[in-house]
Amino acid sequence: MSLASIAMPVTEASVAPSLTEWMQAHQAGFEVCAQACLAAEDREPLRLREAMRYAVLNGGKRIRPLLVYAAGEFASAPEGALNPIALAVEFVHAYSLVHDDLPCMDDDVLRRGKPTVHVAFDEATAMLTGDALQAEAFRVLAAATVEPAVGVALIRELAQASGIGGMCGGQAIDLAAVGRTMSAAELETMHRMKTGALLRASVAMGAMAGHVSAAERDALGRYADAIGLAFQIVDDLLDAVSTSAELGKTAGKDSRQSKPTYVSVLGVDATRRWAERLRSEAHDCLAGLGAEAQTRALRLHQLADLIVHRRS
Amino acid sequence: MSLASIAMPVTEASVAPSLTEWMQAHQAGFEVCAQACLAAEDREPLRLREAMRYAVLNGGKRIRPLLVYAAGEFASAPEGALNPIALAVEFVHAYSLVHDDLPCMDDDVLRRGKPTVHVAFDEATAMLTGDALQAEAFRVLAAATVEPAVGVALIRELAQASGIGGMCGGQAIDLAAVGRTMSAAELETMHRMKTGALLRASVAMGAMAGHVSAAERDALGRYADAIGLAFQIVDDLLDAVSTSAELGKTAGKDSRQSKPTYVSVLGVDATRRWAERLRSEAHDCLAGLGAEAQTRALRLHQLADLIVHRRS
Repeated sequence: MSLASIAMPVTEASVAPSLTEWMQAHQAGFEVCAQACLAAEDREPLRLREAMRYAVLNGGKRIRPLLVYAAGEFASAPEGALNPIALAVEFVHAYSLVHDDLPCMDDDVLRRGKPTVHVAFDEATAMLTGDALQAEAFRVLAAATVEPAVGVALIRELAQASGIGGMCGGQAIDLAAVGRTMSAAELETMHRMKTGALLRASVAMGAMAGHVSAAERDALGRYADAIGLAFQIVDDLLDAVSTSAELGKTAGKDSRQSKPTYVSVLGVDATRRWAERLRSEAHDCLAGLGAEAQTRALRLHQLADLIVHRRS
Repeated sequence: MSLASIAMPVTEASVAPSLTEWMQAHQAGFEVCAQACLAAEDREPLRLREAMRYAVLNGGKRIRPLLVYAAGEFASAPEGALNPIALAVEFVHAYSLVHDDLPCMDDDVLRRGKPTVHVAFDEATAMLTGDALQAEAFRVLAAATVEPAVGVALIRELAQASGIGGMCGGQAIDLAAVGRTMSAAELETMHRMKTGALLRASVAMGAMAGHVSAAERDALGRYADAIGLAFQIVDDLLDAVSTSAELGKTAGKDSRQSKPTYVSVLGVDATRRWAERLRSEAHDCLAGLGAEAQTRALRLHQLADLIVHRRS
């Protein structure tokens, strides 16, 4: 296949099957790695081991691992180096869901179409599951077969994205927001931290496992900012317009909890238009890199479509 | 002072003042680093920032940081490399206390003589405080000024010690043990994971920042195993024989919660004798290294005394 044919403007009809195949292959590869990492050993603590497997395996769209693989493909990174990165970002994501679902936080009983961890097990086990998954994320990263300097940089990136300056900080702002009004700018800050930071880190870390120019790194950062925000905007939309069965998690929660969302601040139509604008922005970031880079960016381009057009 | 005079058998009367000075200097230095790391910024999320400071600052004996500094001194490590390590192990320790005190775990209201984090703030903030402190531990380690290969090794050590194979795993076994009997061997496994792993990592990580021979590393490992177990044994003793005012945390909790402890399994006298035996074992590990190494091991030797003879 010639470069020109791949670098042609991508339409959904022409590439959808091959994106599906690419996703399925990487999702399956990720599952094998996760199964191996969270092996069902016959050794105490059995219940915690089982809860960690329950929280991670056989569920989720694996958006963050897919972004790692797509950015890694862009940066010509070896697949072997990408697997521990994919595990690490998904472990952090999974731990945040387990803690977020606890009664003292969102108090939710349904996740990925199954009872949440504290319902299937118990609250104390759910808390330890989250804690242990966070440690496991850093353990797999520290065991990755990359140059030590890259390993340290990966760990710094993940720690920053998941701590007070990122995910945890965004969740704290979210907690404080219940029942009060927020401007669109405040909402954006919150979401860039709560959801965007880890999505951004997924792209950055995948690229760090390979080689990118400074201009490419910059473009990837802007791409990741756009899709990170789009992801949360679409989450707000889906929460407002879908059923729990469609989502595999409780729908309509935001308005019942009087949480400010993009839908409550901007309305459904303007929110949808904003998501589309961010999708275009993400595409433009990649397009600006020229034909050769755009070829390598095919999966990143397609994942921007997927994130904005997903139905759950 | 000649080597010989330092390598003389250490008696408490002769060195206690200088140990106190050494401890005070390092505790003060640690406090400065922790204050700088958890700075009171005027930036959201303010409440989470405040809770993290509350959980870490102005409290605690800083046993783990002291072990880092003592092992670093043994390995001739630069002080600047030891500070982030001391912060990281203390952040992990502090996060584990915050989560452990939550209603779904030990449900405790008193810690270091103050209301626990979930009492002073709220449960959701306490959970996020623990989560963010864990991320912060890995962030400071990844920012340490050490060779990248050492940085990765430090992170791997901490992640292993704090995850399912260490602290979290031990806590899960502890949870499952409430109300049932345990053999002394089962208790030992639990405590080696729950408390011992992080104490052991503190010694190992302090040494990794400098240079030790293989024989020295091995001896430090055995030393750390002995004091790690002794620490928990003394915790059990103190819980059984002290008042809450003496401990700064709720006393007598183990027997009220029907938790198996060394005191419940072995009785007070045999437990005390065992702690003394472990103290001797720890000293012997260091003594076996010869006079020059023993000079460097002075603070490790003294900290073994402190851990076994402490009153809170």
